[in-house]
Amino acid sequence: MSEDAPEKKSEKKTVTAALLIIGNEVLSGRTQDANLKFLGENLNHIGIQIREARVVPDITDEIVEALNALRQRYDYVFTTGGIGPTHDDITSAAIAKAFGRKLTRHPEAEALLRAHYKPEDVTEARLKMSDMPEGAVLIENPVSKAPGYQVENVIVMAGIPRIMQGMFEGFRHRLQGGVTVGSRSITVTIPEGIAAKPLGAIQNDFPDVEIGSYPFVRDGKVGTSLVARSSDPARLAAAAEAIEAMVRDLGAEPEEEA
Amino acid sequence: MSEDAPEKKSEKKTVTAALLIIGNEVLSGRTQDANLKFLGENLNHIGIQIREARVVPDITDEIVEALNALRQRYDYVFTTGGIGPTHDDITSAAIAKAFGRKLTRHPEAEALLRAHYKPEDVTEARLKMSDMPEGAVLIENPVSKAPGYQVENVIVMAGIPRIMQGMFEGFRHRLQGGVTVGSRSITVTIPEGIAAKPLGAIQNDFPDVEIGSYPFVRDGKVGTSLVARSSDPARLAAAAEAIEAMVRDLGAEPEEEA
Repeated sequence: MSEDAPEKKSEKKTVTAALLIIGNEVLSGRTQDANLKFLGENLNHIGIQIREARVVPDITDEIVEALNALRQRYDYVFTTGGIGPTHDDITSAAIAKAFGRKLTRHPEAEALLRAHYKPEDVTEARLKMSDMPEGAVLIENPVSKAPGYQVENVIVMAGIPRIMQGMFEGFRHRLQGGVTVGSRSITVTIPEGIAAKPLGAIQNDFPDVEIGSYPFVRDGKVGTSLVARSSDPARLAAAAEAIEAMVRDLGAEPEEEA
Repeated sequence: MSEDAPEKKSEKKTVTAALLIIGNEVLSGRTQDANLKFLGENLNHIGIQIREARVVPDITDEIVEALNALRQRYDYVFTTGGIGPTHDDITSAAIAKAFGRKLTRHPEAEALLRAHYKPEDVTEARLKMSDMPEGAVLIENPVSKAPGYQVENVIVMAGIPRIMQGMFEGFRHRLQGGVTVGSRSITVTIPEGIAAKPLGAIQNDFPDVEIGSYPFVRDGKVGTSLVARSSDPARLAAAAEAIEAMVRDLGAEPEEEA
């Protein structure tokens, strides 16, 4: 431990991540991705901000290129999809290629699969799910056993939301989070075109707070959600207060969303 | 018209696209994107295949970098989000920057907005929605009037699904489609680990047909959707027939999904 470790600890940094969604079925519109929303919310709870997401097809070179771009750029990269037993599950081979590592059978993963299936159901296709880049550290799969894994800053998970979420619950404690971003969401029955100017002035006063405006139509009435996000609770509270005062100035009543 | 035009016409080419989703709210998990699924399905109907999607935050340089990467690489790029009246709507300025074009007020777009709002509701923030890259060609917005637009191969749309879909219906006839990809989806009550080997053999026999395997759990029972996709109807039918025969060989009854 270096001597300045405690000081570092008190000043939490921003930890960033990207999500790489692998699968033709998401691009063709057959499957609605649900993993970005889950990870966006749940990673923030532990102090990790998703800054980019990409969806790529089941093509090795596309996966390699996207992964290598993202893993240089963000603290973590999460991947979902393509780690099953069929011919179109090419994620592990692509990740091995991206890292320049061998794809090898992971003994512990193989043992998990052999323990899970009846001996006559241990097919070569199923054992393929234990082929991983050399040095992979397993991530438990509480649903269907075939594990995910981590290689350096890349975390490889299943695409099926229920399995991905099960994996996430098991390894979230291993992730090194930084600051968490709090948010306040204020709903008003004002069109955003009317709130835009004073809201822009508030954004200028709070350059360190991210202020977003999201219009909606509910029961035929136009409204706007004004969302402030910041890692500094005091600044967040002050910005939310300024937004609420601005809304009252416009003659409306701000409603805080849960 | 060149003399070989009829020949070219009979041999339709593959037309590709990317979707660039712009918005902090999608990355933070506040908002579930629904536009990729809609566009993936509906673009294929007119012969355009989405090959990549990216989600980027409301940061100019990130939008510029992603847009310039994608517009070189695909026939079309569709963007959603960030064209409203508030300070966080920076898509048009970013697209102008990416193309090296001036951001200018589009007279026709301005006229549409002035006709839509009562004079006292024509705010500068709302007029900002008519600021577009020079040379933009408008796309009608049947829902809330503020138009989308096209610049070269880039099509800029609203993020709210209902508005995006309204825009899409109005300009889809302008898009130059190529081959459409047909699909057959065969559902079986077999785990994919059992179907994997014979399915891989079928994929080898049909390298021109994209065959995907998607496991699911329904009513506590494990099953798999086997999906074949091809632009050649005869090859698609033959692949689907081979998959159905394979399923029967495994002692199960294939069910065709609608």
